[in-house]
This record gives sequence, structure tokens and C-alpha cells, in this order.
Amino acid sequence: MAKNITPKEQNYSQWYQDVIRAAELADNAPVRGCMVVRPNAYGVWEKIQSAFDRAFKETGHQNAYFPLLIPNSFMEREAEHVEGFAPECAVVTHAGGEELEEPYVIRPTSETIIGHMYSQWVQSWRDLPILINQWCNVMRWEKRPRLFLRTSEFLWQEGHTAHATKEEAYAETMLMLDVYRKIMQDHLALPVIYGEKSLNERFPGAENTFSCEAMMSDKKALQAGTSHFLGQNFARAFDISFQGKNGEMDFAWTTSWGVSTRLIGAIIMSHSDNDGLVLPPKVAPVKAVIIPISGDDEKLANDLEPAASKIAGELNASFGGLGAEVDRKYHLRPGDRFFYHLQRGIPIRIELGEKEYASGGVTIVRRDSGVKERVSFDAVPARVGALLTEIQDNLYERAKAFREENTFDVSSLAELKAFFKGSDRSGFARAFFAGSVDDEKDIKDLTGGATIRCIPLDGATGKCVVTGQEGARASIFAKSY
Amino acid sequence: MAKNITPKEQNYSQWYQDVIRAAELADNAPVRGCMVVRPNAYGVWEKIQSAFDRAFKETGHQNAYFPLLIPNSFMEREAEHVEGFAPECAVVTHAGGEELEEPYVIRPTSETIIGHMYSQWVQSWRDLPILINQWCNVMRWEKRPRLFLRTSEFLWQEGHTAHATKEEAYAETMLMLDVYRKIMQDHLALPVIYGEKSLNERFPGAENTFSCEAMMSDKKALQAGTSHFLGQNFARAFDISFQGKNGEMDFAWTTSWGVSTRLIGAIIMSHSDNDGLVLPPKVAPVKAVIIPISGDDEKLANDLEPAASKIAGELNASFGGLGAEVDRKYHLRPGDRFFYHLQRGIPIRIELGEKEYASGGVTIVRRDSGVKERVSFDAVPARVGALLTEIQDNLYERAKAFREENTFDVSSLAELKAFFKGSDRSGFARAFFAGSVDDEKDIKDLTGGATIRCIPLDGATGKCVVTGQEGARASIFAKSY
Repeated sequence: MAKNITPKEQNYSQWYQDVIRAAELADNAPVRGCMVVRPNAYGVWEKIQSAFDRAFKETGHQNAYFPLLIPNSFMEREAEHVEGFAPECAVVTHAGGEELEEPYVIRPTSETIIGHMYSQWVQSWRDLPILINQWCNVMRWEKRPRLFLRTSEFLWQEGHTAHATKEEAYAETMLMLDVYRKIMQDHLALPVIYGEKSLNERFPGAENTFSCEAMMSDKKALQAGTSHFLGQNFARAFDISFQGKNGEMDFAWTTSWGVSTRLIGAIIMSHSDNDGLVLPPKVAPVKAVIIPISGDDEKLANDLEPAASKIAGELNASFGGLGAEVDRKYHLRPGDRFFYHLQRGIPIRIELGEKEYASGGVTIVRRDSGVKERVSFDAVPARVGALLTEIQDNLYERAKAFREENTFDVSSLAELKAFFKGSDRSGFARAFFAGSVDDEKDIKDLTGGATIRCIPLDGATGKCVVTGQEGARASIFAKSY
Repeated sequence: MAKNITPKEQNYSQWYQDVIRAAELADNAPVRGCMVVRPNAYGVWEKIQSAFDRAFKETGHQNAYFPLLIPNSFMEREAEHVEGFAPECAVVTHAGGEELEEPYVIRPTSETIIGHMYSQWVQSWRDLPILINQWCNVMRWEKRPRLFLRTSEFLWQEGHTAHATKEEAYAETMLMLDVYRKIMQDHLALPVIYGEKSLNERFPGAENTFSCEAMMSDKKALQAGTSHFLGQNFARAFDISFQGKNGEMDFAWTTSWGVSTRLIGAIIMSHSDNDGLVLPPKVAPVKAVIIPISGDDEKLANDLEPAASKIAGELNASFGGLGAEVDRKYHLRPGDRFFYHLQRGIPIRIELGEKEYASGGVTIVRRDSGVKERVSFDAVPARVGALLTEIQDNLYERAKAFREENTFDVSSLAELKAFFKGSDRSGFARAFFAGSVDDEKDIKDLTGGATIRCIPLDGATGKCVVTGQEGARASIFAKSY
């Protein structure tokens, strides 16, 4: 057990912070609610970005960049939008040594300024669709910040598309939800439930919001990504209008969708253990570390280091990029060197001591299970390749099994209350619900904070736990981050 | 000649704007001095980022992310730094519905906040060097904005490193200058002169600044990238101190270095012509466009489109990524379709009409020279590959020859004045200079704006044009962006 990490069973929130500190993932910044994303976490973010970016491009999207600052008047054009975001905005009032005539807000999201630009780019149906994504920083002033999960500034991508028809915009909304689900599953090893948001949880200004929800290892839900069908709300507010094939003017139909550095928090809380960070191989910047061990400098220089470098070279040639590293921290004891990489979540540790060297092989240790095996030099690349796949799959299956074990059907309001307050069970409660916005708020009060995380798209229907009416859709209730 | 582009000989500044508009590279934003980087330019930026990022990683750097906002008090800790940047800062005074106790500035550059974090990360010589880079947006309020060249917000990378010795930090400064030079030359086709900045042009807070300078097609200089040796100035201001191998405490030695979206302006002004944008193949998101041409829908569907798709597929397989596209703008006339891609700077146009198809080949047209050639279907990938290299080389050689033709030795102050005011010659003036900061300012007044762009590292020495003293270093004087 790691001395520098509080066990998660003892204090989950402290465990989370300890894992982050031990892996040098992020620091609190000297700016209220903001964080510094350190190289170990930024490397994960680059892997996440690369997986999503590739999928965005494969589905026809292009990247662009819009201004950080948004005129206050833009925010006010969409009534729900300003109501939702204004209280969280940071405001620039002075610039270039002078007070500004109109204050600017730092973008909390960019529907407004992008809507303004689209209105200038779109005249005819031939200008549609516009399929643009932006990777950037956004700011939402946060009263109770938590590293990666809720910070005043965070990094994200925001897709913004405009279409000629409702059907096309709706299809785009669902397509991007599916792209999200797939990459979360295949790259981040996050088994997500996906579906529609309840009225209470919709994006301010959206006609409908869809989300991917993951279960963390404390059984709380984390919203991992959202895809919004914005109808014609923003097109009306910013006059994104076009002449159709039939010659008539119409407003465009728009969507927006985003994932953020919050996903790093999701990875930490889904896969890590009491020894520290565990990273799915596909998002691990360093996939394997080779550790030559000897007290004999000559043996290190002549035998072990060259052998270690050779393995690193072969692994990098097999898997591309800078995925394998040699550890040369000889001033530390071997155990401390192992622990150093273990706490950083590196999927595979390759130990190369004098004994291993003499026998023509190495000891390979999996981060996810701790299982060790001897492998001969020439078999290392193939074995590492196989193990990376096994680890990736294992993390996904483990998280999925955990979620399934902790998801229960609940058939009455009393049972729902008990589920979150007092019963042995906890996690996700699946219940039929067709109540009002107020009913949803009542449940939140009654359960000490549980809300509808999403209404799965493939969900069955049944009798509402509040109103008793039939045909209510199965909804996932949970406490959430 | 393009009707929508003012010839550069007539009005260079208008030509620049017209090229940007015609290629849909960027728009002025509804935020003072800010721009929208549209997909066609952002794609170039991604290519630029990818080339630099690879080189940063190959030289041992890692990416990270630091906060957008900087406490005002941080800026004030380094006297020259605050003097240089405070007048350009945008200031956040309110956030989350309340007035802030201490205002934050939006980073104009991040030496201060990064220095603060490094002071927490560095205790021992073992913690050094720190080799970190950040890709982000920065803000410097701009009174006379020009797209890409001077905008209130721009995208850039800023490297920030800390070292145990002066020698190591100095070597890093020079290494990154060389990385810049190389990528500008090999990827952006920019032949740059590189060297030391004069006292007047140093980064506020640096002990020494080095830069890469390129000549634009109007013979003005553009500073394309800078690398700063910061000495111990920021380490002292932020207490980045460490215990050395000998047990004694010392301050670290730091560097910083950056390139920005300004490079897109440099590419435009170096290579483009009166028809519009010309892109070096290595930074062109789309390298070749295939244009099937026929008035016969059946022939298009059965013959030309399948042949065009096949070529695109082969090119993408040969060169990777999404570099070849098929144009399907059949509602436009062929000439307008050609012009559309020509104005967007796509290096190679492949025309596939009925005649070409019947003869089993295509017509390939180079964007840089307009030269056309017939190529049979099976020879297209190899020929396109060869042409891309030729175009890349040609753009570099052309720009280099232009700079050399317009660089002159100048041996007196009177000649220097005449060079910039009245003589037939213009461009870069190479003159020996060992004068003071004031002498440099006088030359700027005398010449109507020429300054020392850099003092080339390989430069000779001679008699100073101002003081007459021997041993003065050859300096490049020019008007600049």
C-alpha cells in the first residue's frame, strides 16, 4: 500500500487528490479555481485529443479558432443561454490601459460568437452544412473547484454545426454522441451509458441535450460528454438564415457538442487504485518503462543499459512514437524506482536485473493486475503488444462489470429514497419516470442529491415512480460529479 | 489576373487582405483587434504545429498547460517585464458575479505564472532541467491590428525551460533558435536570417534575445520567432532556487521561446501572388485537388468520378492523411472551379475532363508556376510526389533568391538613410553598428522606421556606421511588420 495515498475506502476525495499529486498530474494554480495541467496529464490529454480529433475529421469536420472574448451583448441574445451562463462568467472591463466601452466575457462556451460568424458565412443552402470544431480553453467561475472535474478554466473541444434541415441537424447530434461513446469506450476504457438529458439538465438554449455518463469507482456518475440539438434557437438569435433550394429563406438548424479535460478525472476515478494512477494503454503517453537494475556501474554501462535501450528502440519501432522509456534513476532503490512508475500509471514495467540479463530475458509486470512474467529478449515486443491489448480490454471489462454490479432497478419513490439514503445498495438506480421538472427537483431533495443522469436511448418504458402513469421512460438516477 | 485581388504592386496592404479574404483564411472578429481563424488557415496552423511539436519532443520537451489568468502582482515582480507588457494587457476585474479582490490579466506571455510554478517544482539539481512547452492563446491589446501579423489575441507556443547552469540555458536558447530556423526553412519554405536582437528589441526581462527574420515580398522584414536567454532574472523574481550537487543554493537559469499564428502571415506574404494564396506543400492541408469536368452527368457518374476517387485514394494512401480531395462543384464553370482552388493555394490541381479520360490520363497544374503537364493514370502518384517536392523547393529557393537580391551592404549613415529614403535599392541593409540604444533610435527616425532586425551570428565585423569604431558587428537593418 502506498504511504502517500489515502485508501479510497477511507476517504475517496482525498484518495483522488493524492493520486493526482503522486502522479504529478496537476496542481492548484495561484488563480482561484484554476489548475496547472502538468506534463504527465497533458500527455494523456494529447492522446485523448488525437483520438477525438481523428474521429471528427473522419466525420467531415474541420478545426477553426474563434475569439476568447465575447461581447456581453451577444450573451444576452439568447434568453436561456445568458441566464445559464452569466453568473459563471469572468468579465474583462479594461484593456490597453483603458476602460472598455462594452465589457467582454471570457467564453464559457462559444455558441454566441460562432453563431454571429456563421450568420455572415451562410447565405445559401450551398453554404451548408458548416461542420466546425474548436479546441480551446473556456472559463466558468467555479465556487467549489476540484482538479479536472470542476475548474474555473478548462480545456475542451466544442463542435458547432449548422444545417439546412432539422433532420440533418438531429442526425449530426446523434452521430457525435455516438463518436463520443465509441472513443470513450475504445480509447479511454470508459463504459458509458448514453441517452437524453432530462429537462432540468439541458444545456441553456438547447432543444435537447444528450450525454455519455460513466460510473466512477465510488459509484457516482460523471457526465463525460454532451451533444446538443439546438433547434433554430441560436440561428434565430444570431440570424443564421439562408435561401433554400426552393428560393425561400429559412433559419439554419444548429448543434454543439463537447468533451473536456474532465475526461482525465473520469479516467483517474474509473481505473486507478490505492497505489495510484492506472492508465488505459491507448491514452498512456509512456506505455512501457524499462528499468535496468544493478549496483555494478560497469555491468550497467556494458550490458544492462545497452540491452534496455535496444528493447526501448524495438518497442518504439513496433508501436510508433515515444511510447517506451528507459529509467536511469540509479540514485533511488529499485523498489522506489518501481513505485515511481507505478504511481504514474505506466501500463507495463520491464525489470532488467543481472539475473534477468544472464538468463537472456526480462521480467514484465502489468500495472492493472500486478501479475509478473519472465519473457526472453526476442519475445518482448510481441508480448508487450499483446499485454497492452489485454490491459486495455481488462480495464474496460472491469469498469463495465463494476457498473453493472452497481446498477439496480428501482420501482417506487420510497425505494428510490432508500437506495440513496440507507439501503445496502448504491450506484445507478434505473427507474421509470414521467414526472415534471419539479418532481425531478423533489427527488433530488429526497435522495440527498440524486438526479436523472440520462434517459438511455434503448430504454424500456413502464410505470412512473412518481405519477404512476404508464409509458414512462427508464431513467438512470445517480449522485454525480 | 484575379478580379477580387488588388495587385500587390498597386497596394500591398490591400493585396494582403484580399488574398486572405479570397482564400477564406480569417475574418475580423466582432471583438476589437481579434480575428477568427477559419478552417483553411487553421489547417495550415495544424501543419505548422505538428512540425514544431515533433521537433520540440525530439529535443526532450513536454507539453503542459498553465492558467490563462495571471495575478496582477505577478506581473509586477520583474520590473522590465511589467513595463513592457502592462500597457497591452486585458484585465479581468469581475468574475462569478463579484468584483475580484485582485484583478487578473489575461496572459500576454507566461514567464511569470510559469516561474511561480517552477519555484514549487524545483528544490534540487535533480529536478532540473525542466523542459516544458505550452500551446495556447495569448492577448496583447493591439491598437493597429492586422490579420495574423498583429492581433489582440493570437495562438502560439511558448517554451519555458529552467536549468542548473548558465551554459546549459544558453545552449538551450541557441538549440531552439536552430530548431525554429530549420522548420521555417524545411516546412514553411521561409529562408530566415537568424541572430541576436539589439538592446532596443530585446524581450522585456531577457538578458538576450535571438530571432529568425524573414523578408516578405514587399521587402519588409517579419520577425518569425524568438528565443530568449532570461539569465536568472525570472528565477530571482519568482525564487526558482535549488540545492546544487555541491550542496549550495543557487537560482536556476531560464529560457523562453515562441512562434505564433503570425507565421501564417509570413507564409502568405512570402509565397503568394496576384492570383491569391500559394502554400508550401508541407503546410498545405489539401495538397492536391482532382477536378472531374463534364457536362454529361452519366459520364461523370460512370467514368470521371470513379477515376477521380481512385486517384484521390491512391494519393492519400501514398502520402497519408487527407491530402487529396475530389471537387464536385458542378454548378460552377470549370474555370471558376480551377480558380476556387488556385485562390486557396492548393499546390497541385489535377484536371480530369472527357479528353483526358479518353486518353487514359490527367492534366496536372502546378500552383507555384502554373506549368501544366499530361500524366497517365498510373503515373499520377509518383509524379505528384515529385512535384510536391519540387514546389516546396522552388518556393524556398525563390524566396531565398529574392532576399539575396534585396540585401545590400551599406557603409555609412548617409547611405543607410538613402537606402530607406530615396535610393533605388530597398530591402535589408547590412551595416556595421556598435552604437548606443539612442543611436539605434536615431537611425529609426532618420530612415523612417528602419531598425536592427538582428545581428547575424555568423556576421563579420567592421567599422561602425555611426561611431566609426572598428570591430562593430554586421547588423541587418530593415523596416518591419
